[in-house]
Amino acid sequence: MFKKSFTLTILLFFFTTPAFAQAPTTESLESSINLVWLMLGAILVFFMHAGFAMVESGFTRSKNTLNILMKNFLTICIAAILFFIAGYGIMFGSSTGAIIGRDGFFLNGVDDIGFFVFQAMFVATCATIMSGAVAERIKLGSYVLIVVAMTTFIYPVAGHWIWQGDGWLTTLGFSDFAGSTVVHLTGAVGALMVVLILGPRLGKYNGKKVNVIPGHNLPLGALGVFILWLGWFGFNGGSTLAADPSLVPYVIGTTLLSTSAALVSSTFYTKLRFKKVDASLSMNGVLGGLVGITAGAAEISLGGSIIVGLVSGILLVEAIRFIDTKLRIDDPVGAMAVHGACGIWGTLAIGFFSIDSGFFYGHGLSQLGIQAIGISAVIIWVAVTVGGFTYILNKLSPIRVSNEEEKAGLDFTEHGTSAYHFKDSYLEGISNSKAPIGLADRLNQNIPSESPTKP
Amino acid sequence: MFKKSFTLTILLFFFTTPAFAQAPTTESLESSINLVWLMLGAILVFFMHAGFAMVESGFTRSKNTLNILMKNFLTICIAAILFFIAGYGIMFGSSTGAIIGRDGFFLNGVDDIGFFVFQAMFVATCATIMSGAVAERIKLGSYVLIVVAMTTFIYPVAGHWIWQGDGWLTTLGFSDFAGSTVVHLTGAVGALMVVLILGPRLGKYNGKKVNVIPGHNLPLGALGVFILWLGWFGFNGGSTLAADPSLVPYVIGTTLLSTSAALVSSTFYTKLRFKKVDASLSMNGVLGGLVGITAGAAEISLGGSIIVGLVSGILLVEAIRFIDTKLRIDDPVGAMAVHGACGIWGTLAIGFFSIDSGFFYGHGLSQLGIQAIGISAVIIWVAVTVGGFTYILNKLSPIRVSNEEEKAGLDFTEHGTSAYHFKDSYLEGISNSKAPIGLADRLNQNIPSESPTKP
Amino acid sequence: MFKKSFTLTILLFFFTTPAFAQAPTTESLESSINLVWLMLGAILVFFMHAGFAMVESGFTRSKNTLNILMKNFLTICIAAILFFIAGYGIMFGSSTGAIIGRDGFFLNGVDDIGFFVFQAMFVATCATIMSGAVAERIKLGSYVLIVVAMTTFIYPVAGHWIWQGDGWLTTLGFSDFAGSTVVHLTGAVGALMVVLILGPRLGKYNGKKVNVIPGHNLPLGALGVFILWLGWFGFNGGSTLAADPSLVPYVIGTTLLSTSAALVSSTFYTKLRFKKVDASLSMNGVLGGLVGITAGAAEISLGGSIIVGLVSGILLVEAIRFIDTKLRIDDPVGAMAVHGACGIWGTLAIGFFSIDSGFFYGHGLSQLGIQAIGISAVIIWVAVTVGGFTYILNKLSPIRVSNEEEKAGLDFTEHGTSAYHFKDSYLEGISNSKAPIGLADRLNQNIPSESPTKP
Repeated sequence: MFKKSFTLTILLFFFTTPAFAQAPTTESLESSINLVWLMLGAILVFFMHAGFAMVESGFTRSKNTLNILMKNFLTICIAAILFFIAGYGIMFGSSTGAIIGRDGFFLNGVDDIGFFVFQAMFVATCATIMSGAVAERIKLGSYVLIVVAMTTFIYPVAGHWIWQGDGWLTTLGFSDFAGSTVVHLTGAVGALMVVLILGPRLGKYNGKKVNVIPGHNLPLGALGVFILWLGWFGFNGGSTLAADPSLVPYVIGTTLLSTSAALVSSTFYTKLRFKKVDASLSMNGVLGGLVGITAGAAEISLGGSIIVGLVSGILLVEAIRFIDTKLRIDDPVGAMAVHGACGIWGTLAIGFFSIDSGFFYGHGLSQLGIQAIGISAVIIWVAVTVGGFTYILNKLSPIRVSNEEEKAGLDFTEHGTSAYHFKDSYLEGISNSKAPIGLADRLNQNIPSESPTKP
Repeated sequence: MFKKSFTLTILLFFFTTPAFAQAPTTESLESSINLVWLMLGAILVFFMHAGFAMVESGFTRSKNTLNILMKNFLTICIAAILFFIAGYGIMFGSSTGAIIGRDGFFLNGVDDIGFFVFQAMFVATCATIMSGAVAERIKLGSYVLIVVAMTTFIYPVAGHWIWQGDGWLTTLGFSDFAGSTVVHLTGAVGALMVVLILGPRLGKYNGKKVNVIPGHNLPLGALGVFILWLGWFGFNGGSTLAADPSLVPYVIGTTLLSTSAALVSSTFYTKLRFKKVDASLSMNGVLGGLVGITAGAAEISLGGSIIVGLVSGILLVEAIRFIDTKLRIDDPVGAMAVHGACGIWGTLAIGFFSIDSGFFYGHGLSQLGIQAIGISAVIIWVAVTVGGFTYILNKLSPIRVSNEEEKAGLDFTEHGTSAYHFKDSYLEGISNSKAPIGLADRLNQNIPSESPTKP
Repeated sequence: MFKKSFTLTILLFFFTTPAFAQAPTTESLESSINLVWLMLGAILVFFMHAGFAMVESGFTRSKNTLNILMKNFLTICIAAILFFIAGYGIMFGSSTGAIIGRDGFFLNGVDDIGFFVFQAMFVATCATIMSGAVAERIKLGSYVLIVVAMTTFIYPVAGHWIWQGDGWLTTLGFSDFAGSTVVHLTGAVGALMVVLILGPRLGKYNGKKVNVIPGHNLPLGALGVFILWLGWFGFNGGSTLAADPSLVPYVIGTTLLSTSAALVSSTFYTKLRFKKVDASLSMNGVLGGLVGITAGAAEISLGGSIIVGLVSGILLVEAIRFIDTKLRIDDPVGAMAVHGACGIWGTLAIGFFSIDSGFFYGHGLSQLGIQAIGISAVIIWVAVTVGGFTYILNKLSPIRVSNEEEKAGLDFTEHGTSAYHFKDSYLEGISNSKAPIGLADRLNQNIPSESPTKP
């Protein structure tokens, strides 16, 4: 089959395909359609990692850019391999006590590779959420070890509870369609625990003063936000697992409306609150609206999704302010507010706005209670495991870089160069100036004195 | 259904899905296939907004970057919500006098959510076209009000005429497959009217002198062009509304060939015309070729699509020059030339190259006449409504920022910061220099004197 | 059909579509499903050109950025048109002597437009690989002529041998699923030949000294890598040509695992080898892993794909070092190592890890021998044709720019401007400084002295 000629394939393409030696049946066709939709979803979720990488590098300083990019690449790559080896089995293997899976390691006996691929893209998401919060001060090696623990064990266990048919929260009736809790809250709580051990960046808090450390490239961050939104249509849409004409457009619709409402509310709210439209907070509002609708995208009404988004946008702004200035926890990209606060809100929102089980649709408050139990269970699980693991890690060898390294920037200390070399375009800008080529550059990157970049 | 376990889902995934409790029928399968194609199209069109945001910010100055990014985010978000509330009903509701729709508000009684989602992505496109033309000098608030008018009423009415089955232009036989006129010309005429009231940017025209104000980040603009092209495959391809094996590849093919031809012609033409290959104009050529083939992508021959593209590329260059230097209308990103001139050309091109009705295929000139009527009707409608609305708006309170604000840049005046903070990478670049941290920054962003970013 | 109203379409959308006037048959549905999958693949492969453009511009100097962007735009556009005119016929037309196609020019008699579209996106890939290797010193015009030769004739012939059913390598049993050899090795050998004639960039090699010329915008390069990875899911996934539920997820899975393994191995290997994690080499590792699995994505086991990736990541690093420091061949973006070394490795890997024919699956070494023959044949063919063509071209008129032009940068000499104008955000950064507006800018871009950008 793999060596078939292309011309032959063209014939096959129109009359039959390898999958169905005989005439296709409606069942075989249906699995083909669902496969295409699920693969589209997986590919879109994959692209979210480009979005995270752009958001996290754009919203932090240029001296730590390469380091953040490498963290994002390593997260998706390590997560995919470990999920293949162990994570998938722990998450979706046959349940032991409704707590943890026990088979399917190395996809042994797993025939649905498509479902594995889709889920593998999700794991990395939960881990990469942490990379933004710990940016600019954690050792690359320590971060990698935390990602290993998160993707091999901690996330898969929480996922088993909620997304494996026999998991205890599934059985309880906990509802989290695409992962406001499973993915986002898990990542946010993990981020919180690591940051508590890590501490704030140098210069962030001086006595009473809370300093703003502006991101270095906001257009890059804005692009990242657009990419994340794009990918999220696959994240939520693909979670239907089937090209269901009555469900898929509904999920895309709620995702679109909630996110739009969140950007609008965060924009207007920052204008009211700070007299100016804060671009960074507004863009984070988009992400808040996405996280907020992730749990209920398939069961919250279209109108409800707008309310979920409006609340997410304002909640996001207040949560970032509260964490930054009241709790004085330094989260460079606001990951805890976006994925934590809005993740909790989105999970609870089902209890209010679900057509099937929500309070405002006459179903009482029982669903809300179940949602609260699930949230609490996940918070406790992640806080204890990530907190404990990171604490031990930090005892064995400090996970934070030295003050000198932090001041110099992780790009220089961990990667030996910087993310940008604008000297020549800069010189074109003011070509009558005498700005020297950087000595540092010439030394550690060995650019010739008769540099080709000199005018 | 929403609480179904994932393992159960995997079974469902291979044997049946919620949509079809019983065995799937060929009809149910067909709607699933069409759904997947339409949703792919909608998601791609959504991503075009990232493309517009990158093109518009890259081709303008860095002091207005955040402002343009926020305009693009607000456009898609406000448009989506308003189209849900009112726009969809006005555009696709039951026709009153072949002029305007009267029901379907809040999607009341609308069961085809997928079609709504696809159309919602289009609305914003028409509005966002204006944001580039008015860049660097319009108040954010005024822009938002114009977007509201455009997406709630003005565009939906034009759309009703052409894309709703009973619209008067549909009945007349006007052909605009994916919207060269409905979407692009509408946006361009809107942009023209606002710009006429707004006036040129300071320093653009000094007496006889026409100054070039270069974009600040052309790679970002180039990425935007690529993203727009990507999204356009969904814009044109999705407009088939069905995964028709005889139509879809044809549409993708004409879109690919026309655009390729346009880039080639604009590149060679600028080389001939200006002795150098003008990168900005060539990239705009890509967009011109896309707009040019949008109306006829489904009925113009493959060979004809190349001609449409070649003409679009040259027309684009001359239109930009003419508008900029002869009409002295300041359009920072060339939106009127791309979406206006090429939109008109693309709509007329059907009259020449349509296999079904084109002059060169022996069908006489009647289609060309009908196309001209449609173009004129839309120009008049948009010019009057947008012009009138903006005029009144400007009377109530000037839509243009003050000279001081314009000089300082809208990022500073509307958002209180700037899009880039390259200081530290800059310092890494020439670390032996003594370049000070910006005082302005230290004051209005409150960076500590013992700044973590100092070497 | 093209003038059908949208409301009518909505009905059609749910009950029938133009493609099937009668009730759909399982055969017609199957071709619809396969069509959707193939078009998704084509669109994703198209987007790879944005990835190449970002990687190549980000990893080179800012004074040549516009030039590289234009090369990438021209490559996809010229390739698409020429493949329509001649390339497709030469590649997939009826075979003459198993060597070359003889019909199907202008798609004459070709009814599978979808397959043409998918293949057209591939052609450009092979050509664009060269643009990175020859960056910063080749004349735009000369590059264009080489692209013409490559896409009209050289690549299509090699493709005919391997992907057309009657091609001699197909008949021989040579296996190259998605083109490690057809696309990537072809591009790399072409790049090598042109670079041998072109020589290294000024300042790259001074006597014994090998200088690093750092890329100017690595985040842009990183984004390009992510985009390439995204597109590659379509490159490999789409090469199944059918939405086969047993094959497609498998291909996506091997592509994901191989690439992830390659990033991990290149990251750790550079840490071991150079004491620091080299971000550029690690990102290139991603591309190496993608090229490495391209040939065998459909027949190498999931475990095998991880091994293929691990080897690709290390091979990539050593190949770049060897070519750069031992062979002293100046390849600014490492294209020869990524597409050449890893392309050969990926093609040979089938001989080892193919479930159908690999040594480690008990099938002996015959497949390995066949793979070696195919690789050699393609290397010889491309080396002779590209080498000969470029040699003649260079005799007629030197393909390399003058030293003065190279020092000034191709953006200035070929396009008359620069890619970035950060002056004003720079001024906002240190607004208390007196940095002048560039004289050069004021002269050749005619910015008024009373510049709107001055504070």
